[in-house]
Amino acid sequence: MMNDEQYMMEAIKEAKKAESIDEVPIGCIIVKNNQIIARSYNQREIRQQSTAHAEILAIEQACQATGSWRLDNCILYVTLEPCPMCAGAILQSRIQRVVYGASDPKGGCLGSCINLYEVAGFNHYPMIEKGILSEICSSLLSDFFKKKRKNKKKKEML
Amino acid sequence: MMNDEQYMMEAIKEAKKAESIDEVPIGCIIVKNNQIIARSYNQREIRQQSTAHAEILAIEQACQATGSWRLDNCILYVTLEPCPMCAGAILQSRIQRVVYGASDPKGGCLGSCINLYEVAGFNHYPMIEKGILSEICSSLLSDFFKKKRKNKKKKEML
Repeated sequence: MMNDEQYMMEAIKEAKKAESIDEVPIGCIIVKNNQIIARSYNQREIRQQSTAHAEILAIEQACQATGSWRLDNCILYVTLEPCPMCAGAILQSRIQRVVYGASDPKGGCLGSCINLYEVAGFNHYPMIEKGILSEICSSLLSDFFKKKRKNKKKKEML
Repeated sequence: MMNDEQYMMEAIKEAKKAESIDEVPIGCIIVKNNQIIARSYNQREIRQQSTAHAEILAIEQACQATGSWRLDNCILYVTLEPCPMCAGAILQSRIQRVVYGASDPKGGCLGSCINLYEVAGFNHYPMIEKGILSEICSSLLSDFFKKKRKNKKKKEML
């Protein structure tokens, strides 16, 4: 049995896969009965799909793995606070608990811009745990964007 | 050139396809330069995918059709007010304008439970038009659920 930090390390491994193909490094895994049933990473650019966020791809994989759109008793681990689309997909799939690493002031919907799960009227409310290995998760992102800016400057100087 | 009502009729045609396979009748189309570039309907049950809402499927189709995750200058027509996931996907894909038919007090995120596009901090804000052919759109849904309840009662009586 692994704990939240150990599962988040698995999500971080996924984020690194994104980084290796020049995608914004965000990774996600889904756990059911202490088993990882889905793992994915952000693939928006490579697929040119606005929905190809780590969480959406992992949720789709988990639905396929379980044969059901209801991901009851599942926990989703993601390195960055979910955007409205992904926070909504977590809610739609009845995931029990979301654990995220870094907060996202530019779009995060589980506490930063808004906490979507505090809005009344939905038929499901996942639990939220935040800040798990947040420093590793946010360094991955800041290093990625730093490198991007550096490369851009280099190109401009040529 | 078609107007909003005419395009909504096309989304209603999609909703009817959902109804014909016993899915909750919600339909969606996406228009760019007065051309319908994507059309889809709710397929959550048949695919057993929590993300298979009409809007998500149409957005994915439109990204494929245009070869880009950015659906600039696109208009999305949907028969029911989008849920948080779909409202978020519309935002993520930079769709310019959303036109919806019926309001959804049980989960609608463009005015009913919340207006997601009034939350500060996002990098894009689509325009919203609501209530287009709302009576047809909501009758489709209420008739569907009425029939479901009736069939359930019949089964219970057998």
